[in-house]
Amino acid sequence: MSLRKVKIYGTGKYLPGQPISDTDMDKRLGTAPGWTLRMTGVRYRHFAGPQDTASEMGAKAAFDALKAANLQLSDVDCIISANGTKEQALPCSAVFIQRAMGMMHSGVAAFDIDATCLSFLAALDTMSCMIAAGRYRYVLIVSSEIASVGLNWQHKESAALFGDGAAAVVIGPSPDGESSGIIGASLRTFSAGAAYSEIRAGGTKRHPNGYHPAEPDDYLFEMDGPAIFKMASRLLPAFADDLLEATGTKMADFKAVIPHQGSAMAVRLLRKKLGITERQLVYITPDHGNTIAASIPMGLHEAARTGQLVRGDRALLIGTAAGLTLGGLVFEY
Amino acid sequence: MSLRKVKIYGTGKYLPGQPISDTDMDKRLGTAPGWTLRMTGVRYRHFAGPQDTASEMGAKAAFDALKAANLQLSDVDCIISANGTKEQALPCSAVFIQRAMGMMHSGVAAFDIDATCLSFLAALDTMSCMIAAGRYRYVLIVSSEIASVGLNWQHKESAALFGDGAAAVVIGPSPDGESSGIIGASLRTFSAGAAYSEIRAGGTKRHPNGYHPAEPDDYLFEMDGPAIFKMASRLLPAFADDLLEATGTKMADFKAVIPHQGSAMAVRLLRKKLGITERQLVYITPDHGNTIAASIPMGLHEAARTGQLVRGDRALLIGTAAGLTLGGLVFEY
Repeated sequence: MSLRKVKIYGTGKYLPGQPISDTDMDKRLGTAPGWTLRMTGVRYRHFAGPQDTASEMGAKAAFDALKAANLQLSDVDCIISANGTKEQALPCSAVFIQRAMGMMHSGVAAFDIDATCLSFLAALDTMSCMIAAGRYRYVLIVSSEIASVGLNWQHKESAALFGDGAAAVVIGPSPDGESSGIIGASLRTFSAGAAYSEIRAGGTKRHPNGYHPAEPDDYLFEMDGPAIFKMASRLLPAFADDLLEATGTKMADFKAVIPHQGSAMAVRLLRKKLGITERQLVYITPDHGNTIAASIPMGLHEAARTGQLVRGDRALLIGTAAGLTLGGLVFEY
Repeated sequence: MSLRKVKIYGTGKYLPGQPISDTDMDKRLGTAPGWTLRMTGVRYRHFAGPQDTASEMGAKAAFDALKAANLQLSDVDCIISANGTKEQALPCSAVFIQRAMGMMHSGVAAFDIDATCLSFLAALDTMSCMIAAGRYRYVLIVSSEIASVGLNWQHKESAALFGDGAAAVVIGPSPDGESSGIIGASLRTFSAGAAYSEIRAGGTKRHPNGYHPAEPDDYLFEMDGPAIFKMASRLLPAFADDLLEATGTKMADFKAVIPHQGSAMAVRLLRKKLGITERQLVYITPDHGNTIAASIPMGLHEAARTGQLVRGDRALLIGTAAGLTLGGLVFEY
């Protein structure tokens, strides 16, 4: 793989409303005190309220990222919505982010990239190639998810996992003399696991107005945790080995390993299978939950904000997504 | 802009079911004989039946494209679903296309790019940069849309416009000594027009299970044709001029101009505003209708199949999409 001279200029984050504790969740789910925390490792998550939209949340994270990058709105020439969910069925969500940012007359390109929970990783991989090709200069990648509206509260294990929130990143060409870059990435999809986590209805297959009447539960998230765990366990080690080999890196090289925070169990699986140390791991599950595609850029934001990641450091983004897809990206910050 | 040495190796198409004539549509809509044809210019469109899924339709078009490209399944290292609609709310649609192609254990990367009706154009622009960067080799871009499930039959003007169908294209690096390439592209979004064509519900904003109860009509397509026409009329000429200038081309250079077939009126607007001759125009509205994002690759397929476009020819893809987005791409076939 050849280095893409692309730099992460700034990151931002936004969480809607007040944190909801595991104790609140136990009450809502009707579970024994301590159940939510023990099962999910999530102490706090945020839920969007009726006044919140994903695009407005995303716009707040985007402004935060631009400020951190010391860039202006007028510098941005492309906005990517990198999400597993859409704000409305049509048009694409990036349009609404552009509008929420007050850029409705700007003509700045806006489109969506969707690889479910790995949408941000796929977007960073993809858009860094566009920047390297000179097609765009500063690209805003926004992941903003409202998972809460699609939770099935009868499925306590999955309902307890998720949180809402937004994160954004501005990328652009690395200035001359700086070593920031995307060293390499891998995305591998095994659709044998497509039904392991899904929302069956809401698209053209089981449309609210379609041939196939949907049950109310078909509009809600459903996952087969053990099946995902088994498939991911089997595939992850070789996946990571291949990525490290292709990028000429070792796990020990990374100052920060930023996983998709699917669940405490998913993060433990990654740590164990890939030999990630506690010091390397960026672990935000306990105070965010699983925020779908916003999870990885939120971890990146926290790593940059807390100083775990400083310029010149190498880092790894890695995770699994519904699909089932495995993704990894190696970069120098 | 610098040339991306990327070649369109093959194209494919699939239409579900039997053609439905304008006479059939007049009956279904309760309009006077001749109304559908006069209002829309669409004589025939296809509608998917209860047995059809977008992914299976897309897989058929993809196999057709691979055959035309004289490539094998095992050559493909990335599958993009480039659609304005999704098959189900989660995961992304490319996963289901991969599964429908029998590649469920392949590990081939699969994700979605969504720029509504311009999704194919955005995907070709984007993925050609990934190929140029050496990130992927042969990429399958599949646009497969089932518009019919989201039509509002009370809005006769828009219901009469659409058709279902799939198209697919295989792209890869241009062989040494060949001049095929992506010369340049432009995508410009003006979200001031975001509400001019939309399906308001079905996402996180008006979720079937959400805070904001949706009306049945909120799940159906709605458009303000005159507002789109006015905005597109105003923006198109400068948009096209900028693209031609940036690519060092003139309208007269193109053997084929392949527009998004939004409607007969939209195609007429393009022809008139941009000075496209009848000979250059690839016009498939009358026997396809508006197939959302499948429309442009279907036009490309027809231009290649009929010999209007031969190797060495220059061509232009151009159109408008909900967003409102304008897009154009100049290539040498």
